[in-house]
Amino acid sequence: MSSYQDLKEQAYLANMQLPKLNLVLFTFGNVSAADQQRGVFAIKPSGVPYEELSVEKMVVVDFDGITVEGDLRPSSDTKTHAVLYKNWPEIGGIVHTHSTYATAWAQAQRAIPIFGTTHADHLTADIPCAPPMEDEMIKGDYEYQTGFQIINHFKNLGLNQREVEMILVGNHAPFTWGKTAEKAVYNSAVLEAVAQMALLTEQINPAAPRLQASLIEKHYQRKHGAGAYYGQS
Amino acid sequence: MSSYQDLKEQAYLANMQLPKLNLVLFTFGNVSAADQQRGVFAIKPSGVPYEELSVEKMVVVDFDGITVEGDLRPSSDTKTHAVLYKNWPEIGGIVHTHSTYATAWAQAQRAIPIFGTTHADHLTADIPCAPPMEDEMIKGDYEYQTGFQIINHFKNLGLNQREVEMILVGNHAPFTWGKTAEKAVYNSAVLEAVAQMALLTEQINPAAPRLQASLIEKHYQRKHGAGAYYGQS
Amino acid sequence: MSSYQDLKEQAYLANMQLPKLNLVLFTFGNVSAADQQRGVFAIKPSGVPYEELSVEKMVVVDFDGITVEGDLRPSSDTKTHAVLYKNWPEIGGIVHTHSTYATAWAQAQRAIPIFGTTHADHLTADIPCAPPMEDEMIKGDYEYQTGFQIINHFKNLGLNQREVEMILVGNHAPFTWGKTAEKAVYNSAVLEAVAQMALLTEQINPAAPRLQASLIEKHYQRKHGAGAYYGQS
Amino acid sequence: MSSYQDLKEQAYLANMQLPKLNLVLFTFGNVSAADQQRGVFAIKPSGVPYEELSVEKMVVVDFDGITVEGDLRPSSDTKTHAVLYKNWPEIGGIVHTHSTYATAWAQAQRAIPIFGTTHADHLTADIPCAPPMEDEMIKGDYEYQTGFQIINHFKNLGLNQREVEMILVGNHAPFTWGKTAEKAVYNSAVLEAVAQMALLTEQINPAAPRLQASLIEKHYQRKHGAGAYYGQS
Repeated sequence: MSSYQDLKEQAYLANMQLPKLNLVLFTFGNVSAADQQRGVFAIKPSGVPYEELSVEKMVVVDFDGITVEGDLRPSSDTKTHAVLYKNWPEIGGIVHTHSTYATAWAQAQRAIPIFGTTHADHLTADIPCAPPMEDEMIKGDYEYQTGFQIINHFKNLGLNQREVEMILVGNHAPFTWGKTAEKAVYNSAVLEAVAQMALLTEQINPAAPRLQASLIEKHYQRKHGAGAYYGQS
Repeated sequence: MSSYQDLKEQAYLANMQLPKLNLVLFTFGNVSAADQQRGVFAIKPSGVPYEELSVEKMVVVDFDGITVEGDLRPSSDTKTHAVLYKNWPEIGGIVHTHSTYATAWAQAQRAIPIFGTTHADHLTADIPCAPPMEDEMIKGDYEYQTGFQIINHFKNLGLNQREVEMILVGNHAPFTWGKTAEKAVYNSAVLEAVAQMALLTEQINPAAPRLQASLIEKHYQRKHGAGAYYGQS
Repeated sequence: MSSYQDLKEQAYLANMQLPKLNLVLFTFGNVSAADQQRGVFAIKPSGVPYEELSVEKMVVVDFDGITVEGDLRPSSDTKTHAVLYKNWPEIGGIVHTHSTYATAWAQAQRAIPIFGTTHADHLTADIPCAPPMEDEMIKGDYEYQTGFQIINHFKNLGLNQREVEMILVGNHAPFTWGKTAEKAVYNSAVLEAVAQMALLTEQINPAAPRLQASLIEKHYQRKHGAGAYYGQS
Repeated sequence: MSSYQDLKEQAYLANMQLPKLNLVLFTFGNVSAADQQRGVFAIKPSGVPYEELSVEKMVVVDFDGITVEGDLRPSSDTKTHAVLYKNWPEIGGIVHTHSTYATAWAQAQRAIPIFGTTHADHLTADIPCAPPMEDEMIKGDYEYQTGFQIINHFKNLGLNQREVEMILVGNHAPFTWGKTAEKAVYNSAVLEAVAQMALLTEQINPAAPRLQASLIEKHYQRKHGAGAYYGQS
């Protein structure tokens, strides 16, 4: 049995959540699960339909994007995952989708304003949108550079990847992450819901204001602060 | 067997309606069922996925929000439910969701105009939207204050909670109620449908007028008046 | 066995199509099936959930709206059905829903412009929207007057109920009809799809032109003309 | 056994994907699968509900639209398929639907701008929209002329049907094609998703720019170029 069996199972189960949550059409998405100590992650093979996936088909890759186990070619976005894992040692799962509303905001090249508590329950900032990449970055090692585009945009905005676990890449689509692959998938579904509600909010009231600071803080802290009282743990 | 068995069953069954009616993502919603004579209500435990719910996991709480039965932590919105039950003795069920369209109106901080008979079949007023709370209220006992924000907005507008069984809390999301938890869930689904149709109505005709008074009255009375002739009772 | 067994089965089966086609929430819709020679129709009982319907629960009513068979109260919209059957002897089925997009156009008080061949495959005119009724009509025998509001609007526009089998009632919701209850249900689903596409069309291009006359004629005739070549009959 | 058995099976299976992918209401769509060497294609019979389809009911037609096998009348759009197969010998499958968002763009008479990588993964141009046909073309052999309208629009724009496998026909609806019927169905689903995201993009940012050239090229090449690295082949 593979010494990466657990990791591959995590990646498999998380990938299978994407179609159930209506976050992918065909194969337009992928999830990876990382073991930061061993410096590897398991990721969906490229272009394989979800109904044909299995634990065995997951590909194990190191943080330079080199396959260490598996017969199939890993997701074409593998290098983006690798860069993020290497630079952000606290994350254990990454999701990339082309989910409808989040992708529309990415195509519109706009950050998603924080309009309500559904958003504030998960992060206290607007959901960032990295600008489209420069031509040289695209013509070079594109997926590798996509990872740095994400990291640099977080640096520019002073955001912390432990507190903001999602981003839109301009003209492209969303990436989300978390401590585990399961949490990263959860974040993708939250992002899609928040993206839809934000568009509807602007349609109902083009002058809708951002959420006031006290309410942002309150909702985030009751789920994530030291005195958090949401959930059972 | 628990002396609250019936109440917990009502709460359980009503909670399980939320995902079936597409009113919740993950755990973003909760239903409670109250026994006004005994001064208690059964409510969903906080953060527990719907697929893992059971009658036994329902938490019984008194009208001050103190748990009287159950091993799990009750919904983080429990104090809002408690305040409403204590002040509105005629209601027996409360629902809170972040359903897509109703939440978008809440985020837009607008009451939902009464545009048609679907709305008038259920209430004769615009669906009210309480303003976001003051900073001190948020920093204090937030969920407790949310209950008063709802009650005060009803007082300010001269609305009667027996006739208008729903409200939007600005920047947050909807609450609905009714004689039973089942009726409160019904109201949440009606609210979501009315919220979607109202946005579409404004998109089709930005100058769409409110429903004329005679038609509001007719539709409400045929379902709720002394001479009601809708349904079998 | 009831001498209306066939009629009740037709009405039952047609009613059960409404939730399958996503045209109703809860009990917000009803279908009837008529026998024009005997001057009766079978219709859904009022307020009974679709999952509890059965052939036996269908109510048989004459063209004055008087129940001739059945223990339950017929749909609150029964008199509207009765008026249409009495005045339009060529129709054998009627559907009333509050389907989302069609109702939004009704609330916006606009006829649905004929923008494409999906529309022209079924009718050559804009889908009419009767104006809201006068106060006296509403305060009088409301459902009865709704029938006349529909008939009068067809007369005013010079429309033929054999060629245009659907209407929006302003501020209210759609009615459709056809030779059979099954065809009337089909028309309700077509109306909902056309209503959604028309709104999207205007959103994509606010100056979108109506379909040219030759294309309206071509599409309608290939399905309905003397030389029709759509389908197998 | 029919010598067209394989072709009919391909057509049958591809047709059955349309309702699964939510691309058709009732019978508003059809798929054909061609054998370019034998000069024939199998196509859905006209007006037959998807739930009643079978391999045996597929109709085999030559490239002039003449039935060579099958008891049923072929799709009313058969001549459009025939013209495309005859003039574009590299295609092996064609799909016609009235899917919601693609049809709305066709009704709006607008090409779909290339706003993101989801689009660029599949084609490097805006999705073309052929103008509505001239009156004489419509009154003549309409479906036959529809085929030429598509071909001529590609010629006018200098597009290559091997690289752009989809078109909107103004005021009407989309057609897609591909090497196989299965690929053509895939393209129909991609088109519908891209059409929805493009409308949302314009709603979020009316000034949203087209995708930059380098990113269009990169995404198309990684899926379709000589050095493609998407998928397993």
